[in-house]
Amino acid sequence: LPLAIISIGDEITTGSVVDTNSAWISEFLLEHGMETRLHLSVPDDLRKVSRALRFAQTQARIVIVSGGLGPTVDDLTTEAACQFLGVRPVLNQHALDMIESRFRAIGREMTNNNRKQAMIPEGAELLENPFGTAPGYVFATKRACFFFVPGVPVECRRMIEHQVLSKILAREKGKKIFRPLILRTFGLTESRLDQSLAELELPRNVRMGFRAVFPEIQIKLIASGKTEASVVKALSRAQAAIKEKVGQYIFSENGRSLEQVVGDLLREKNRTLAIAESCTAGLIAKRLTDIPGSSDYFLAGFITYSNKAKTDMLEVPGRLIQEKGAVSSEVALAMAEGARSKAGSDMALAVTGIAGPTGGTAEKPVGTMHIAIADERGTWEKKLFLLRAERSQIRELAAQTALEVIRRRLLGQKNLEF
Amino acid sequence: LPLAIISIGDEITTGSVVDTNSAWISEFLLEHGMETRLHLSVPDDLRKVSRALRFAQTQARIVIVSGGLGPTVDDLTTEAACQFLGVRPVLNQHALDMIESRFRAIGREMTNNNRKQAMIPEGAELLENPFGTAPGYVFATKRACFFFVPGVPVECRRMIEHQVLSKILAREKGKKIFRPLILRTFGLTESRLDQSLAELELPRNVRMGFRAVFPEIQIKLIASGKTEASVVKALSRAQAAIKEKVGQYIFSENGRSLEQVVGDLLREKNRTLAIAESCTAGLIAKRLTDIPGSSDYFLAGFITYSNKAKTDMLEVPGRLIQEKGAVSSEVALAMAEGARSKAGSDMALAVTGIAGPTGGTAEKPVGTMHIAIADERGTWEKKLFLLRAERSQIRELAAQTALEVIRRRLLGQKNLEF
Repeated sequence: LPLAIISIGDEITTGSVVDTNSAWISEFLLEHGMETRLHLSVPDDLRKVSRALRFAQTQARIVIVSGGLGPTVDDLTTEAACQFLGVRPVLNQHALDMIESRFRAIGREMTNNNRKQAMIPEGAELLENPFGTAPGYVFATKRACFFFVPGVPVECRRMIEHQVLSKILAREKGKKIFRPLILRTFGLTESRLDQSLAELELPRNVRMGFRAVFPEIQIKLIASGKTEASVVKALSRAQAAIKEKVGQYIFSENGRSLEQVVGDLLREKNRTLAIAESCTAGLIAKRLTDIPGSSDYFLAGFITYSNKAKTDMLEVPGRLIQEKGAVSSEVALAMAEGARSKAGSDMALAVTGIAGPTGGTAEKPVGTMHIAIADERGTWEKKLFLLRAERSQIRELAAQTALEVIRRRLLGQKNLEF
Repeated sequence: LPLAIISIGDEITTGSVVDTNSAWISEFLLEHGMETRLHLSVPDDLRKVSRALRFAQTQARIVIVSGGLGPTVDDLTTEAACQFLGVRPVLNQHALDMIESRFRAIGREMTNNNRKQAMIPEGAELLENPFGTAPGYVFATKRACFFFVPGVPVECRRMIEHQVLSKILAREKGKKIFRPLILRTFGLTESRLDQSLAELELPRNVRMGFRAVFPEIQIKLIASGKTEASVVKALSRAQAAIKEKVGQYIFSENGRSLEQVVGDLLREKNRTLAIAESCTAGLIAKRLTDIPGSSDYFLAGFITYSNKAKTDMLEVPGRLIQEKGAVSSEVALAMAEGARSKAGSDMALAVTGIAGPTGGTAEKPVGTMHIAIADERGTWEKKLFLLRAERSQIRELAAQTALEVIRRRLLGQKNLEF
């Protein structure tokens, strides 16, 4: 079922905001067999919105329009929709009641401009918004069915999950099924992955592609077919064939993030973890604790940004820092051992490096990174050069590598090289 | 000068990747007077790419196309461009030399599929890519000028900054000038901001809009005019009028992030900072150290996720945690004082709270948050309820509020309420 997605707002076409809704909508609806043909973004401008609605209905049978339903003067999606559809805006009493009760619930006074949000095109069907003040609506023309939803991401997503999806599925039955599968890898470049898999024979109804989602490379499979069973079988045959070639680089096959995979391994093996970070300064701990329930295995983090903090918080000998430098194998190992002993954790990881843009030398250029692990098996340490990258990329690469090192260590892999 | 931006790739229309290039390109070129009329994303599909190119040239005179120039089988932008333009792909020797020398420089072997990247449409002008293997190219038709650039963000952006911009500016002279200005606020909802500014009289050539970029609300001004001077003058008049109404909520007027603003204040006032984090667990420290040179003022972070860590690392009395709970004013204050004394910093900030989704109680629901500061003026503490939000949003709101508290404290504001 072909789909087009329009996001409306100056904030998008001026580039102040990145449109994350369109990607989310496409991904969510693809899992239910709908294939996006087009993303389109236009400014808050009556003519440009109308033109986008017109173009979209020539390309797709379902059109999802997000944004421009807010209370302020620059929100004119409903006005543009009325012009395009040739109907008047009318007050929807149920929408007004919902908005009023929402304001009562959060103990705020309703402003007059919120009343505007209860106006929807005549003949449109209301979509409730339990997460905000802007209701949505649906309107079908002969060529396409238009769903108007709020631009605020959480409101947009909940409305599509809870209301739009079921209405689309009710309209269409017996169509072709699509299922995506993403294998997330770290450690090989896109070209090398492509080469390693060039000779692979895949089922004819499976399409393979690669995508670099910094800092990982993803292998994306899309299978299509008439039945759920045929699609699932084709996907799992393709998945097995790929794992035979590059399995050691795949850290996730089920959508879980690397921090989730590491967390699940820690919980499964009943191990606790502490982290000592210098250049990444909280990034690794932040990622690990993005996962609900991470307090089961994550005990503490030591952000030892200054040399003094390394000595005070982790008992890294001041002499060692002076002799070897804060960015050295010896200091990384001492940080890991210090973190393990101070936190009383089973395992500790330490990262120290030079994230730049300044602070590099000929011997230790920007991007020099030391990662160390201390656990009951002893210690392990690795030096990396994350060159030709910007500060934020160096930090993200260091954090990703560190988490991947923990994953491989927990799996008992001997070879922790990258 | 009207602009359209096309991003090509299954990864975008399937929603696996969020298209950040289009926003970046729009924002960058807007600063040079170009207004984006349209963002368009289509899959890696010959017909859909051709159709997008055709539609774009009816809407804009400059079309920037990113993505699909890579070495793999699913990269077919050049093939689609050739079909659309009615020319053949030809080998560009200079492009091939660049790709070969790039592989030599990084000490890797060039794969055969990289050779494909040296094929560009006949009659197109090459755009060099010093950051990757995919060169870009430019091709002008009667209706529009097309720039093809790589999809990898850093390569895309550098090519536009260093090569595309100058070529566009060389084509167009004496056109209307546009300048944006963003005032970033925290502490008021979008509706309240809109109401506070409803009566404001702005210069006629300044357009004002709002945008919620979680967790902040931005006021965006766009001024247009014939001369640089008239545009700058109109913007600064609008800016002054807005500051008179809601100045205390504006934390940035020059594009700087909140962590940059806080960092600059710390440096200016010659103060050092330490952070103790429980539920945010590294997020605040990570944001502060995103800023190059933050080691000048940021000394250390204590991620005391477990109760034991709060006692071991910060000397928060175990009895206090037992009596008042880890999420309490008393523990937040003890964490801030402990961090200040352990790190030897001028100032310390502590955050403890319940990020959820579990762990909430009737008395302390998910979203309960305590923020405390210790400095030479004494201590300060505030309880917040960040309700109706998801774990990641609660953590981001807590981090944003904490940084804003530091900013207001450093400015000597008496009222730190939100």
